[in-house]
Parts: sequence; C-alpha cells; structure tokens
Amino acid sequence: MESLKQRRTIRKYQQKDIPTDMLNELLETSFRASTVGNMQVYSVIVTRDAQRKAKLAPAHFNQPMVQNAPVVLTFCIDLHRFSQWCRQRKAEPGYNNLEWFVTGATDALLVAQTFCVAAEEKGLGICYLGTTTYNPHLIIEALELPELVFPIATITVGWPDENPPQVDRLPLEALVHEEVYHPYTSEDIDRYYAYKESLPENKQFIAENGKETLAQVFTEVRYTKKDAEAMSELLGQVMKKQGF
Amino acid sequence: MESLKQRRTIRKYQQKDIPTDMLNELLETSFRASTVGNMQVYSVIVTRDAQRKAKLAPAHFNQPMVQNAPVVLTFCIDLHRFSQWCRQRKAEPGYNNLEWFVTGATDALLVAQTFCVAAEEKGLGICYLGTTTYNPHLIIEALELPELVFPIATITVGWPDENPPQVDRLPLEALVHEEVYHPYTSEDIDRYYAYKESLPENKQFIAENGKETLAQVFTEVRYTKKDAEAMSELLGQVMKKQGF
Repeated sequence: MESLKQRRTIRKYQQKDIPTDMLNELLETSFRASTVGNMQVYSVIVTRDAQRKAKLAPAHFNQPMVQNAPVVLTFCIDLHRFSQWCRQRKAEPGYNNLEWFVTGATDALLVAQTFCVAAEEKGLGICYLGTTTYNPHLIIEALELPELVFPIATITVGWPDENPPQVDRLPLEALVHEEVYHPYTSEDIDRYYAYKESLPENKQFIAENGKETLAQVFTEVRYTKKDAEAMSELLGQVMKKQGF
Repeated sequence: MESLKQRRTIRKYQQKDIPTDMLNELLETSFRASTVGNMQVYSVIVTRDAQRKAKLAPAHFNQPMVQNAPVVLTFCIDLHRFSQWCRQRKAEPGYNNLEWFVTGATDALLVAQTFCVAAEEKGLGICYLGTTTYNPHLIIEALELPELVFPIATITVGWPDENPPQVDRLPLEALVHEEVYHPYTSEDIDRYYAYKESLPENKQFIAENGKETLAQVFTEVRYTKKDAEAMSELLGQVMKKQGF
C-alpha cells in the first residue's frame, strides 16, 4: 500500500539489467490478475535487444526511454492464441469483433498494471508510453504481431536513476460520484482544477506556449482535436486490418 | 507481492460494510496510477444503496454479487469533466472520438486494477463483472452517466465469505514472447492447454453441456460468435450515443 501511495513514474534508468528470473517472476505474478472467463486473451512481448528497441522507437516518437530502459514490455490484446486452440479442438471461434477487442484490452491492461505494482514493490521504476495506440501499425510491424493481436500498452522498466517529485492529482471528490454521476457546476470545476492551475510548472507551460490558459496548452498543443481525429481514423483502420 | 501471488476472485461477501474512510483511502491510493498527460480522464461511481444495486443488477445479468456486495464500483471513461474544464477556460476540446475512448479506458482500467490490488492487500475480496460492456446502455441509465462518460469495468467489493481454490493459469511461456511474436505450433497449443483440459471441473463442463471439447463450451455455450456480434453492434451504437 505504501509503495502505491508513494509511486512516481520513472523515465531515467541505471545502465543495469533486470535478471530474467526476476522479470519472469514479476510476469508470472501479473498473470494472477483477473481475466474474463479465465481465457487470458493477452500476450506480452519482451524487448531487450538494442536493435529491436531501435526499430520500436519511432512508433513511440523516439521517446528516449525506449532505447535507454533495459526492458520494454508491450502488452497486447491476443485473441489469436485462443482462436487457434479453438480451431484445433473442432470449435469455431467468434472473437474477431469490437466486443473482444475491448475485452482483450481489459485483460491486457489489468495484467500490465499488476506487473507495474509488483515491479515497483521490488524497487523498479516504470513508465507507460501513451503512444502505443498512436502508431499501432508500426508496433505491429516491429514486433511481428499476427492477426487478432493488438498492442494496447507499452511500459519501459528499469532501475531508477532519478527521484522526481510526485505529481499532482485532482481531489478525491472530483473523481468519485456517490450512487449517480453528479454533474459539475462551473464552481466545482474551478475548485477542482485550481491547484493544478496554480502550479509554477503549469504557469510556465502556458507562458512557453504563448497561451492564455492551461486548458489551451492541452487542446491546442499537446492533445489537439486534429491529431485525435487522425489517430482515431488510423486506429480504426489498423483494428480492421488486425481482424477486429 | 505475496498477496498478488495468492490472490483469488471472491464472489461471496460477509454482511459487513466497508467504512467510508477505508474506501476513500483505497480510491485515493488507486488515483496514483499512471494517467495519460496527468489528465485523469476517468470517474468512479460508488454504489452502496440497495435500490440502486437493484437497478444495476439486470445490466449484469442479475449476478448475485451486485446485490450481495456492500460496495459496487463502476469505473468509467470520463472525457466529460475534462472537456467542461476546457470550455470554461476558452479551449475547444477534441476528445469525442475513438482514440480518447481507448485512452480513457486505459486510464480507468489502471485505476480499477490498482484499487483491486490495494483492496486485496487490506483483506477485502473483489470480483470483476465482465458484463460491463455487454449492456452499457443499462448502466448508463442506472448511474445517470452524461455524454463522454462510459462504463468500462465494474467490481464488487467486500469482506470475503469464502476461500475458493486458486484457478489455473496458462504457463508463462504461453503468454510471453521474446523480442517478436512467435507463432504457436499445434504442438505448442496442445502443450499449453493440456493442464486446463485435464482438470476435472472442465471435463465436467464438457459433459454437462454435451460437447466434445472444452473449446466448444466456450464457442458454443459461454462466448458465442452470435452474442459477440450482437454485443459489438450494441457497443458501437452506445459509444456513438455517448458522443465517442
């Protein structure tokens, strides 16, 4: 519990390997996570090889963690293995659709997060790469993922070489609703985002980007509508291409 | 780590409440999970009220846990709050699309799983309800979820009133790929699924359902193509209706 409360994302790693036995134990532990119908419709691709990391890096916009971390893990939706088992057992699988994409994503993400919790408890540091669903086709190519396998989360893992401060979070009452969803008044929004907006680093973000508000840094610089629409289009196409 | 290794899903709970302070501490801990751009695009709906549980139950095919657990948590993708903040800050949000549905689902699922790990460490038991994406419209109605809010995972939580055996998992090598995805030979599949197929409870499943193989119990009884296609169709419609 304490390591969960104190956690922070780690982007800089020591040049020190993670022993295979340790990694395998962490993976095995993570596979105890809940899974729909005990079907385990996920796979994990372990990248340690420098050349493979170099191939993977552009898919993640060359974020330095990919090449600097000793281990990169790509957690994938995997309906391929289960479907192959079905076909070998005179059963006709029907998992090439949106429902099973979402179910597989759920399975894979519960495993990914359980891995992270276990790894952090052992002193390792992790970073999720939000880029995984931006360029899924590049990851599919780099990791040779077959039909019905789809990358949904990537984490870099290693021994921390930094000790960053914990970042802010919204207050509890901004995120939790009792019984039904309670619409936010404009005063609620002002109150919940006040701390975030007061932080010097966020004020600096606004100034550096020549914007008027922090929200504009999100909508006009970091996560624009135009980018999201292009990525949604691509994501839909790649989902189809992978058989979903 | 030990509680992760020893974990099992709990479906029967003591008639004993979870103190609000304890639940809030667990939720607050779970909100330390990684989140894209520190945007926290999720919300959690807490259901304790018996009438609300009764309203929620049909969405989950009346699985008894919904009404018997002291607490039901519905983890939702939430782009509504963030978009409202943007609009109040002269910023035009562009998060009503597939990319942000997937990103929000990722955020929400990492929080859900972190909650589960923390809760189990405190001695609570949890059960994920795979039904959440089967009838999302019923959940949206029962919990009064507005546009850009979508239920992605439901867990029931309570003090365990059973001690079930741990269920089987596929061997590590069936789930992990080194560097690239390694296609499975038919011998691999036979080997990886042999233990599962050997279990008396699975043999009983086959007999009870009058099938020839365990895989047929999955494809013809538990998770059929016909159901998955109908659910995919509905899921797509409800995603659109919620603004994604």
